Amino acid sequence: MTGQFYPYSDPDRIKAMVNALAAMTERDRPFTRLVFSAEYKEARAWLQTQFEQVGLECQIDAGGNLIGTRKTANTAEPPQKLIIGSHIDTVAAGGRFDGIAGVIAGLETIHFLNKQSIDLPFDIEIVDFLGEELNVWGTSCLGSRYMAGLLSDELLARSDQNGRLLSDEIEKIGGAGIAATVPRQDADKIIACLELHIEQSSRLEREGIDIGIVTDIPGISRHAISVSGSAGHSGTTRMQERKDALVTASHIVTKIRDFALEISEQDNGHFVATVGRVEVYPNGAAVIPGHVSMILDLRASNEKSRDRFLGNLKAACNEISHRESCAIGIDQTSYAGVASMDSSLRTHIARSAEGIGLSHISIASGAGHDMAHMSRIAPAAMIFIPCKEGLSHCPEEFATPEAIAKGSAVVTCTVLMLAGILFSSGT
Amino acid sequence: MTGQFYPYSDPDRIKAMVNALAAMTERDRPFTRLVFSAEYKEARAWLQTQFEQVGLECQIDAGGNLIGTRKTANTAEPPQKLIIGSHIDTVAAGGRFDGIAGVIAGLETIHFLNKQSIDLPFDIEIVDFLGEELNVWGTSCLGSRYMAGLLSDELLARSDQNGRLLSDEIEKIGGAGIAATVPRQDADKIIACLELHIEQSSRLEREGIDIGIVTDIPGISRHAISVSGSAGHSGTTRMQERKDALVTASHIVTKIRDFALEISEQDNGHFVATVGRVEVYPNGAAVIPGHVSMILDLRASNEKSRDRFLGNLKAACNEISHRESCAIGIDQTSYAGVASMDSSLRTHIARSAEGIGLSHISIASGAGHDMAHMSRIAPAAMIFIPCKEGLSHCPEEFATPEAIAKGSAVVTCTVLMLAGILFSSGT
Repeated sequence: MTGQFYPYSDPDRIKAMVNALAAMTERDRPFTRLVFSAEYKEARAWLQTQFEQVGLECQIDAGGNLIGTRKTANTAEPPQKLIIGSHIDTVAAGGRFDGIAGVIAGLETIHFLNKQSIDLPFDIEIVDFLGEELNVWGTSCLGSRYMAGLLSDELLARSDQNGRLLSDEIEKIGGAGIAATVPRQDADKIIACLELHIEQSSRLEREGIDIGIVTDIPGISRHAISVSGSAGHSGTTRMQERKDALVTASHIVTKIRDFALEISEQDNGHFVATVGRVEVYPNGAAVIPGHVSMILDLRASNEKSRDRFLGNLKAACNEISHRESCAIGIDQTSYAGVASMDSSLRTHIARSAEGIGLSHISIASGAGHDMAHMSRIAPAAMIFIPCKEGLSHCPEEFATPEAIAKGSAVVTCTVLMLAGILFSSGT
Repeated sequence: MTGQFYPYSDPDRIKAMVNALAAMTERDRPFTRLVFSAEYKEARAWLQTQFEQVGLECQIDAGGNLIGTRKTANTAEPPQKLIIGSHIDTVAAGGRFDGIAGVIAGLETIHFLNKQSIDLPFDIEIVDFLGEELNVWGTSCLGSRYMAGLLSDELLARSDQNGRLLSDEIEKIGGAGIAATVPRQDADKIIACLELHIEQSSRLEREGIDIGIVTDIPGISRHAISVSGSAGHSGTTRMQERKDALVTASHIVTKIRDFALEISEQDNGHFVATVGRVEVYPNGAAVIPGHVSMILDLRASNEKSRDRFLGNLKAACNEISHRESCAIGIDQTSYAGVASMDSSLRTHIARSAEGIGLSHISIASGAGHDMAHMSRIAPAAMIFIPCKEGLSHCPEEFATPEAIAKGSAVVTCTVLMLAGILFSSGT
């Protein structure tokens, strides 16, 4: 079955692309390519050149997504679309593979189709989704939210600490900086959205499995927690008279961990809660902290667990606020419900993996992904590949070029099955 | 007694100087004039002009102190010296009076001496001590440490997050950037060091007292606390597998407060412990914190309390480190023992206050001051004046021009007594 169409991907080409993108980083904080940064813009320009070199027609849509289209010769108007995409932004001090592997996999599919001169009955779009990682505006997945019609005016009107409006930043990258409350116009023509991604956990590696077929993506919410006490002189203010925002925030952080640990041990699904970002004001060594801002990142495959956690947290914060004489505010800044991946696509992916001799398992995602939003408007699916020790969002993040090539071959195979070019013995 | 020599200070002139210096601040973070910043350099240049306008001969010594000298006509060589000084740097988001009031008070004394054409039998030096506030190099009182021979090579070789060497910064401000392991050459000629300062606590205001005569300055130590865990993806790393540096740091912060509260309630003297500065790395909302750096600021009028606190903290950190699987390091970055103010000078100050009809009490300082270091090489004393609600190291910090004028009059009177020009009925 896989004879002449065995969808070869080139590990050397993959490695070269990973390395080229890895060089576009904040120098003193590898690997950092924050959305809208100079490094990000440099990488975008470079990526567009790569798209053009394999014959893709490039555009940046109103949501700031870089889209390279390989058009079908099928003149039926308007054509059906298949999207392969991921993202090239990183978290601060992140890795070289999260998102990047998925964009490179899309290009590998194009390389294969070009080399075999295959005309598909639908357009393929390789998409670099804008800003997938959580940003300083308290949101993530900017590009896929836009496509899915989930980018609100409220989000766009947010400004960061330096007064940069989110809408302005999207405009500067080539988008329109406007809200999207309905899906992209041709959403009904999208037959599939596929994303290859590193697992970001260690199960595939541990069990020696090539491919994880994602069942669902957990609900993710973010909550801005603000703590206000009174700044004062660290030497002259008696311990008994203090309203120390950092002491208060510290109690909140430990409660968040305790509640999350407890729920994760009781819940069969996925449940994690993290305070990753903290700003202390004024942050002087001889000044009692007057204000602390934190972001709580909450992920649950079970909405009831999430509600229970937030209920516990709010009760605890009331008690802490009273005891420490500090005001505590908790505001949800973003929310996405649990997203299920398309079962028909999952079957195609399983057959593709089997067809080229790769092992596979079904797996729940721990992280959020653009496919969570795309699944609201079209069939979406994700292909996980093993990464070293499950490490991710850190410089040690690693996946072998061979693992990316295998995953990319599965993507290509799935595309060929959807095109009616390959058939599996199972269908 | 106080007839013709009543040492008048001018509240309007004091207010104008406070306002002029307050304008030299980081614009978006009043009142911030960090040592070595552009604002600080601007204020230094302005202050030198003020010094010159009242006839002071200006120099910047090798330690970066701005010294304005009013020479005695007494030709005995070398002349004795009297120092009046404080500092014009501030903490981040600090106030308009901490340090500043003391420098202005010194100029008021000069104004009075000039107006009355008084020649003193000693030189007076008005000193703007370099960088009294705790800085990013983990130390404070740069200028007075230098004069006292307490500025080590180790301190000077420290670099901040941006790689700025402390020695280079001192050199750029006009100092030599070299260590001082012995006191200034003419230390034996210094008959007194006087510093007026806002109380930074609320006792004088609450009890309606004009003048606080400082008995001693607490021992101050600073400790760099570093916590190292493992950064990781906030979505995919199970709660049970985390080595979260922020959770660990939060446990330390709450322990520090608990131990300090306990000791301060048992200790008759002054005891406070503060974590004011925190840096979380990488500080991304979707990344488990891998590293946290904090500065612990510890002040004790009783060395035994300090030792007991640090013993408790180290034991707690061992337990926390083990439980949370994070490494914890605690390194003392600076230390100054308890400093007693000169009893003879304290008597002169008391007599001066009484001579001009001001109420006074003896009072222990909560904060550290340049006089702690100067007291190691010469008789030193401090005059506290009331400040509003005891607030300090915050923008709300306030003292009335009249309160500063009263304190300044006490300084002048003390100088005149030391010069043998005024005598009190009590001497």
